[in-house]
Amino acid sequence: MSHLAIYPGSFDPPTNGHLDVVDRALNLFDGVIVAVASNEAKHPLFSTEERLGLLHTVLQGRPRIRITAFDGLLVDFARQQGASAVIRGLRAVSDFEFEFQMALMNRKLEPDIETIFLMPKEEYTYLSSRIIKEIARLGGAIGAFVPPCVADALRSKSSQPVTNA
Amino acid sequence: MSHLAIYPGSFDPPTNGHLDVVDRALNLFDGVIVAVASNEAKHPLFSTEERLGLLHTVLQGRPRIRITAFDGLLVDFARQQGASAVIRGLRAVSDFEFEFQMALMNRKLEPDIETIFLMPKEEYTYLSSRIIKEIARLGGAIGAFVPPCVADALRSKSSQPVTNA
Amino acid sequence: MSHLAIYPGSFDPPTNGHLDVVDRALNLFDGVIVAVASNEAKHPLFSTEERLGLLHTVLQGRPRIRITAFDGLLVDFARQQGASAVIRGLRAVSDFEFEFQMALMNRKLEPDIETIFLMPKEEYTYLSSRIIKEIARLGGAIGAFVPPCVADALRSKSSQPVTNA
Amino acid sequence: MSHLAIYPGSFDPPTNGHLDVVDRALNLFDGVIVAVASNEAKHPLFSTEERLGLLHTVLQGRPRIRITAFDGLLVDFARQQGASAVIRGLRAVSDFEFEFQMALMNRKLEPDIETIFLMPKEEYTYLSSRIIKEIARLGGAIGAFVPPCVADALRSKSSQPVTNA
Amino acid sequence: MSHLAIYPGSFDPPTNGHLDVVDRALNLFDGVIVAVASNEAKHPLFSTEERLGLLHTVLQGRPRIRITAFDGLLVDFARQQGASAVIRGLRAVSDFEFEFQMALMNRKLEPDIETIFLMPKEEYTYLSSRIIKEIARLGGAIGAFVPPCVADALRSKSSQPVTNA
Amino acid sequence: MSHLAIYPGSFDPPTNGHLDVVDRALNLFDGVIVAVASNEAKHPLFSTEERLGLLHTVLQGRPRIRITAFDGLLVDFARQQGASAVIRGLRAVSDFEFEFQMALMNRKLEPDIETIFLMPKEEYTYLSSRIIKEIARLGGAIGAFVPPCVADALRSKSSQPVTNA
Repeated sequence: MSHLAIYPGSFDPPTNGHLDVVDRALNLFDGVIVAVASNEAKHPLFSTEERLGLLHTVLQGRPRIRITAFDGLLVDFARQQGASAVIRGLRAVSDFEFEFQMALMNRKLEPDIETIFLMPKEEYTYLSSRIIKEIARLGGAIGAFVPPCVADALRSKSSQPVTNA
Repeated sequence: MSHLAIYPGSFDPPTNGHLDVVDRALNLFDGVIVAVASNEAKHPLFSTEERLGLLHTVLQGRPRIRITAFDGLLVDFARQQGASAVIRGLRAVSDFEFEFQMALMNRKLEPDIETIFLMPKEEYTYLSSRIIKEIARLGGAIGAFVPPCVADALRSKSSQPVTNA
Repeated sequence: MSHLAIYPGSFDPPTNGHLDVVDRALNLFDGVIVAVASNEAKHPLFSTEERLGLLHTVLQGRPRIRITAFDGLLVDFARQQGASAVIRGLRAVSDFEFEFQMALMNRKLEPDIETIFLMPKEEYTYLSSRIIKEIARLGGAIGAFVPPCVADALRSKSSQPVTNA
Repeated sequence: MSHLAIYPGSFDPPTNGHLDVVDRALNLFDGVIVAVASNEAKHPLFSTEERLGLLHTVLQGRPRIRITAFDGLLVDFARQQGASAVIRGLRAVSDFEFEFQMALMNRKLEPDIETIFLMPKEEYTYLSSRIIKEIARLGGAIGAFVPPCVADALRSKSSQPVTNA
Repeated sequence: MSHLAIYPGSFDPPTNGHLDVVDRALNLFDGVIVAVASNEAKHPLFSTEERLGLLHTVLQGRPRIRITAFDGLLVDFARQQGASAVIRGLRAVSDFEFEFQMALMNRKLEPDIETIFLMPKEEYTYLSSRIIKEIARLGGAIGAFVPPCVADALRSKSSQPVTNA
Repeated sequence: MSHLAIYPGSFDPPTNGHLDVVDRALNLFDGVIVAVASNEAKHPLFSTEERLGLLHTVLQGRPRIRITAFDGLLVDFARQQGASAVIRGLRAVSDFEFEFQMALMNRKLEPDIETIFLMPKEEYTYLSSRIIKEIARLGGAIGAFVPPCVADALRSKSSQPVTNA
């Protein structure tokens, strides 16, 4: 059987924890689609194009990966792509409950697509895009948490004047 | 004894999970007040009047129910109405902690009103007004999660241009 | 409507937290059955008869209460007694999950009996029969956690030589 | 790629929830090994042979499955079998934490085997072998929770005199 | 050894729960720095100056305390101050996970500063600045939850017209 | 001020996670008492004497430590020793709730002794004496989780015939 998995997220920006999950998914599936949820309504720090660009840079050289954006329902997109699984990383109990609600809802909307949960390295337990953006904003060192090009991009954003809340 | 319970919420919009809790409360109490928290500061998708209208439609025919709005403290409203209990549905651990904090606070403010927790059907575990609004916004099918008039109202809202964040 | 609730438990032994839940249930229901699960397989510290005796002593004077033992399925017993609700006290997240599993199972076995969850006083959050037995065994003061007759009974047990594990 | 997954458990006895997880695993992997942990030290209700027999009966006709017992370390067994993944079903937050500790430990012992978590149908959220054995012991109806041959086997066990704790 | 601890927070406004944690920290450390995170981006109800003023009033008379504001990374500030520990109060499971993520991140940024968790009185379990602001806004009595000068300040704020969301 | 902390536990056997907590406590307190709860009723794998011996070996060279056994109430022992704090390591949400119940109970029994929670290294999140004993029993490699002398002691125990359950 040929199995394709989809790994959706905001990736605003991608972290080392995301990359760890991508590599675990590649060990289990024949192909992995990294799918950037545009989420423009949530005012992401990086535009969809910037996030796609960062992912292309940090994932280059990895085989069997496709990187793309989507903006409708995840299950509709997964079905169009022929994916049989949705990959989610689980770090903590609070993740778990929200992820379970989403996975049950997605199963109701499309029973043939299975959500599977992977566990990132325990050293990435405390990583989240939100915390990393906060540390970068406050001038902290983020080199241990994100790939170099993401660290550069975060520093550029942080040095720009903020024009909206 | 005659016991009156109050079931407060935003109901933005009402879901099948809310209706399930109302029916369970009606089996336990002589009367149930469904109380819409106006919450205008939270920018609800539906106005208080719209939410009251939807509740009147979906609950019509059920006996011993009153539907009303309130905008002060819940416990003050409950006392004015002569209610001896506040009903809350519990779906998940994350619900549980927030609900417990609110219930303890309400008990401190008004010791004579008891908060009781009911468990909706397990198939409604993953239902929340927030997730349903998101699915409707993305064009997903919501007919399994809300009564028909709510589905219609959500579709109308989703096809309107968004004018604020 | 006349509503009868059943409050099941091991009550090995009854604590101030149990009494608090009984009083809350009495404010909501026309009658409350305090039902001692025999649980002989779990080697309780107090025999079923001792637990019934302690409950009769500590609850005497309270109206509309019946105290009894049962040893089959809770839902069968509740149906025989004509109860419409099962009362459970919730103290903590770990309680919550186990209680939810039991309540969902009981609903599957008997859909007409509703489980309702009440919240004891926050000062009883840390009370459990198990912890109190442990403190009594180690010679600690338990007067703040259980009624006087239970404290006496625990002291008697603790001074007896232990003959089984 | 050909991917083999191992689904370990006590299966004492197998439930409808276990079968649901097996079917989900079969949709994702080329083969699934259902691996019965002997766990004789835990005094299972059914012997290893009985559990293997029940699994053979309830899973017969499903393709690409092997059923076997093991009694050493799970990761050693998985490596011997050439499995790249360990499958675990997640039902609740309390599951989650224990499962995470085990999965992190297994990763430390054998980094090349990935633990993946699947979510059973929400109607199986409240199912556990332990609760089903308890209901059977108390004479409750278990036909909705386990396959017919397991229900028969449980009834046979429950009617036997208990000879050990 | 001389040990200095830092107790950071928004303190928007300070509650009786905060004071309880301060007193516990003073019993353990030679000095305690109460550090107000400016958090202007979060639109606090009280300005940094107002929060500092309220803390000076409610903590006056307590020895070995310093009250100050900071707006960069907590660990940088702690190091500058010579603190060996960061104090956090833990009330609930949801607190716990977020606090753990922050503490692990802070340890990564600065391994020599230890985060220690203290437990406020159980009667403060349900207290949070957010809930208290909400009750004050709705006209509820808050005298049991905050010191008198904070109650006065909240009443003043609540009677002002709201000019932003 | 001179502050003495007590770090109680079963230490059956001591793990690298325990040592990590001891070192964190030594950075915060002037002295640390490592207190072995005898817990003979729980049938520990190692006798109290063996556990004391292992702790003496693994902690030798560390200053300001005392290692001792106790078998009454923890708070009585702490008061006799003049300790102002009890140290507990927190790894997970399930730890958290049980530990909170114990800490609240201990505060009730002895208000002057504060329980403080420390967080071990995230790589020790999955370590528990129970899991390590299980791995050793199954013949797995435990050298990464416990000090060498504990690994040796576990191997000796595992090669002995088991004579009780």
